[in-house]
Amino acid sequence: MTKFTDWLGIDIPIIQAPMAGAAASAMVVAVSNAGGLGSIGCATLSPEALRTELQAIRAGTRRPFNVNFFCHTPPPMDAERERTWRAALAPYHRQYGIDPDKIPAGPGRAPFSAEAADLLEDIKPAVVSFHFGLPPAALLARVKAMGAKTFCSATTVAEAIWLEAQGIDVIIAQGVEAGGHRGMFLTDDLTTQIGTFALLPQIVKAVKVPVVAAGGIADARGVAAALSMGAAAAQVGTAYLLCPEATITPIHRAALKSDAARHTALTNLFTGRPARGIVNRVMRELGPMSSAAPAFPLATSAIVPLRAKAEAEGSGDFTPLWSGQNATGCKEIPAAQLTRELATAL
Amino acid sequence: MTKFTDWLGIDIPIIQAPMAGAAASAMVVAVSNAGGLGSIGCATLSPEALRTELQAIRAGTRRPFNVNFFCHTPPPMDAERERTWRAALAPYHRQYGIDPDKIPAGPGRAPFSAEAADLLEDIKPAVVSFHFGLPPAALLARVKAMGAKTFCSATTVAEAIWLEAQGIDVIIAQGVEAGGHRGMFLTDDLTTQIGTFALLPQIVKAVKVPVVAAGGIADARGVAAALSMGAAAAQVGTAYLLCPEATITPIHRAALKSDAARHTALTNLFTGRPARGIVNRVMRELGPMSSAAPAFPLATSAIVPLRAKAEAEGSGDFTPLWSGQNATGCKEIPAAQLTRELATAL
Repeated sequence: MTKFTDWLGIDIPIIQAPMAGAAASAMVVAVSNAGGLGSIGCATLSPEALRTELQAIRAGTRRPFNVNFFCHTPPPMDAERERTWRAALAPYHRQYGIDPDKIPAGPGRAPFSAEAADLLEDIKPAVVSFHFGLPPAALLARVKAMGAKTFCSATTVAEAIWLEAQGIDVIIAQGVEAGGHRGMFLTDDLTTQIGTFALLPQIVKAVKVPVVAAGGIADARGVAAALSMGAAAAQVGTAYLLCPEATITPIHRAALKSDAARHTALTNLFTGRPARGIVNRVMRELGPMSSAAPAFPLATSAIVPLRAKAEAEGSGDFTPLWSGQNATGCKEIPAAQLTRELATAL
Repeated sequence: MTKFTDWLGIDIPIIQAPMAGAAASAMVVAVSNAGGLGSIGCATLSPEALRTELQAIRAGTRRPFNVNFFCHTPPPMDAERERTWRAALAPYHRQYGIDPDKIPAGPGRAPFSAEAADLLEDIKPAVVSFHFGLPPAALLARVKAMGAKTFCSATTVAEAIWLEAQGIDVIIAQGVEAGGHRGMFLTDDLTTQIGTFALLPQIVKAVKVPVVAAGGIADARGVAAALSMGAAAAQVGTAYLLCPEATITPIHRAALKSDAARHTALTNLFTGRPARGIVNRVMRELGPMSSAAPAFPLATSAIVPLRAKAEAEGSGDFTPLWSGQNATGCKEIPAAQLTRELATAL
């Protein structure tokens, strides 16, 4: 195998994790121009916003970047489950004066689509990555045909083996420490989700394609350790969240800088799928994992108005405060500088 | 700080994890004579067995070794909870023809005691380590007065800071990947239990005493990675379980060698406290964490007869198949050789 960075055309084996809603074109451009691989998470972008963002990245850098998509199958609406969910949230809706009959459909998350593939054919990103498994075979074939390198998250050895069999170029071993959504797709059993120290070497042993380490990697020593355990590169998310380029709210920034960041949990309350965030009021009161939450992404709509009302009062009680299990690597420095610092122990 | 191995009087920064019931004097002697730190877990030993084992170790090696104790407060018997627990197990008791009225008190686990301290004063081990927090102050003072170095597991940053304040010499950062019992003692919230990649650097930053990395470390590259992240030594447990010196059953050995070892979970079914083992029938059917299980160690008595009956038929359906999240480092080689191999990437 050619050296991974050469093959990819980057200088530094650091991938800024795609974080839908938390990092946009400015972050991607900064990281890629610094020699790493910037990534844009597209799951929350409208088709128009996706086009605008991709054009901004293309205008800002000639270096490789990564365009990331969710690959879930949107579930049918389940009226009974939606009722159960709204009943669980009813005390909060009353507290904030929200009329549950007037809650609009939530922003949700859209999976990779033919329209997105059309756009990619214009932009020709070096890397297209997937979360929650892969798109339908025809769509995946289009991505490969356009010459993009394909990456996908695996949270278990079985998922890694499956992805290699589908012809994916690079597997991201997502340890349970990682912030945001678990990429799990062959199981919904959270006990299968294991730590990076255990997951990374087992996936490295199980597949022949390059493996990127993700989850809990927050500083230069962590990056070096991951590479010494066989990773071709390290994917770092949380550490970028205090960079000026991050698009998170002041409430989220404050939470990351506080002692509260020491305690995260996997929660399905914000979207319906387990994702790691800093424990806040709604997670404490409903339990971070609730059987009342509708399937991804349908849980979103009923909780979003609470977030808006609470944030207007300066509260993060209903905000998804996405974070990995080690926020101590967060620095209020430009993303380019952080990218270079992360590589200083290599 | 003097180099950790010099300070401890060992050659190799590898600690064979104490594993009560799974490793006895032969393992300890082999590891310590190979230059690592052998450890004996004493929680399941009677006072007589403890004396015999410690004398066997003392006779077998002049090198430092580690004597490990649990430090729980035995709970009062709770008749109501015991009834609930026996009701949960009743279908299994019927299947195996076990009369629930004739179940004897289980072997349980004894915490560190004045009697054990008496014995240690005769044997003078180099290291005394604790799990589930610390013994009462007077007992801890006796251990320090006999010149032993004191180690204790921390599963959170808060526990590490607390242990340092109590004057503990070395903190073991036990990542959630680790097999066997979680050492947690300031919380019983499992969402606080984090991966080694996230826990180790945060504890290293938070305390001044040496930190030992534990959890998911299964091979030489893992050992080197842990040390590169600031650990003074690596504690390895699961990888030793197929060594000839291990005292586990053939059923446990077979499980570790099978694909089943890829899926472990934290379970309180076997003792009442969360401990990591390979998922088996009783964990699947009752759920690995059950509110019906009595407080540690009282859950043990009603499940032990099931284990005995099932094992007599060659089944591990009711056996605690303790394992960490990475069993791929297990090798059927002598413990001394494994100890040396674990240090080959340093």
